[in-house]
Amino acid sequence: MSSRQSVDWIALDADDTLWHNERNFTAVQSRFRELLRPYHSDEWIDERLYATEMRNLAHFGYGIKGFTLSMIETAVELSEGRITGREIAVLLDMGKEMLATPVEVLPGVEEAVKELAADGYALMVITKGDLFDQETKVARSGLGPLFRHVEVVSEKREADYARILERYNIAPERFLMVGNSVKSDILPVLALGGRAVHIPYEITWAHEHVAEDVRHERFARLDSISELPAYVGSLGG
Amino acid sequence: MSSRQSVDWIALDADDTLWHNERNFTAVQSRFRELLRPYHSDEWIDERLYATEMRNLAHFGYGIKGFTLSMIETAVELSEGRITGREIAVLLDMGKEMLATPVEVLPGVEEAVKELAADGYALMVITKGDLFDQETKVARSGLGPLFRHVEVVSEKREADYARILERYNIAPERFLMVGNSVKSDILPVLALGGRAVHIPYEITWAHEHVAEDVRHERFARLDSISELPAYVGSLGG
Repeated sequence: MSSRQSVDWIALDADDTLWHNERNFTAVQSRFRELLRPYHSDEWIDERLYATEMRNLAHFGYGIKGFTLSMIETAVELSEGRITGREIAVLLDMGKEMLATPVEVLPGVEEAVKELAADGYALMVITKGDLFDQETKVARSGLGPLFRHVEVVSEKREADYARILERYNIAPERFLMVGNSVKSDILPVLALGGRAVHIPYEITWAHEHVAEDVRHERFARLDSISELPAYVGSLGG
Repeated sequence: MSSRQSVDWIALDADDTLWHNERNFTAVQSRFRELLRPYHSDEWIDERLYATEMRNLAHFGYGIKGFTLSMIETAVELSEGRITGREIAVLLDMGKEMLATPVEVLPGVEEAVKELAADGYALMVITKGDLFDQETKVARSGLGPLFRHVEVVSEKREADYARILERYNIAPERFLMVGNSVKSDILPVLALGGRAVHIPYEITWAHEHVAEDVRHERFARLDSISELPAYVGSLGG
C-alpha cells in the first residue's frame, strides 16, 4: 500500500468539527454550578459531575439525555437530597434547551464540504451521541444532502470504524477521517490503515484528551477546515 | 413482481420480538404509580406520564433514557414540585435498573433464528430506541453473531426502511420484516413492496396501537416465532 494511494471517501466527525457543540455543554455546566453554589464550591461541583458522567457512561452512552440524567443525579447527591422539585425542573429544561439549541455550523464548513462534494469525493458523517439527536442536527444543519451516509455510533474504536468500512466496502487506504478528537477521530483510523486529519476545536472535553502528540505519515493537523480541500487535493491519486 | 418471489433477507424487530421489553416498562410504571400515590390516582398518573412521553418524543426519541427523564418530569409536575431529592434518586435508579435488566430472549427465538441462519437466509435486526442500549442488548442476548447487521433507527417509517434496503442493495420483494408492531414493523414494509410477518406480543404500548386489521397478500400473522422457518420455507423461491 502506497502512502500516496488515492482517497475517495472522506468522513467527518460532527460535534465541534461541523458545528459548535462542547461550548453548549460548557454553558449549561456553568448554570448547573450556579444552581448548586449554595451547597458546594465550583471545583467540587465540576469534579463530581464529571465523575458521575464517567460512572454513567456504561449505562447511558454519550449524548445530551445521559448528560441531563447525570446532572440530576449529581444535584441530588451534592445537595444530599435537599434539591427541590422546582430545581430539578430547571435541569430538565436545560437538557431540553440543549436538544433544541440551533445548530451553528462552524466557519468555512459549508464551503469546504461543498467543494469536496463538487470534487467528486464521497462524504459521510461519523459521530457519537444519541441517534435521534444527531440525526436531527444533521437535518437542521442544512448539510444533510451533501453526505451520502450518516453513521451514528456508540463508540469510535478501531472496530467501529472497521465495521463501517466493511459495510460500504471501502479499503482503508481510500478512507480519510476528519475530526477534532485525536482519541476518537485520529488514532483508531490510523491504526486501521486509513488517513486522518485533526482540526482542533477551541475546547476539548476532558474525556477526549490524549497525552501524546501524533506523528504519522498518513496524518495531518490543519488549523481550519478551509484548508481541507487543498490538503486532500495534494494527496494525489 | 411475483408475490411468490424468493425472500433472502429477513429482518427482525428486537424489543418484544426477540426479547421481553414492554413488561419491563410496565413493571417500572407500577413502581412509579406507588411513588406518586400520595398525590394522585393511578389513572391520572398513567395519563400524565403518557402525555409527557408523547410531548417529549420530539426532544428525546424512543428509549429508556427519555422515559426516565419523562418520569422525573411527570413526578415534579404531579407533586407540584414537592417531590424530594431522595424520590428523584429512586427514579434515576429505576432507569438504570431498566438499562441493566438482563435480556430475556423470548421462547423459541434462539431456535428459529438459528434455523433461518442455517437455511441460508441473511438476517438483520432493525430496532428503534437508544443506540447504545440496543447494541448492548443484542450483545447481551447472545444472538449477535447470527445477524449480519444491526440497524438502530430513530423511526420506522417507510423512508427509514427504504434507506436500509438501499444501503444493502436489497430489492423489496426479497425482504421480509418480522415484528410485533403493526404500525412500525408491518405497514411501512408492505407499502414499500416487501413482505411482513406480525407476531403479536402480550402487551402493546399505546403509542404503537393501530386500529385496522391488515389484509395483504404479502402479509401473515403467526402465533409464535417457532412457526417462522416453516412459513418462510412455504414462500417458495
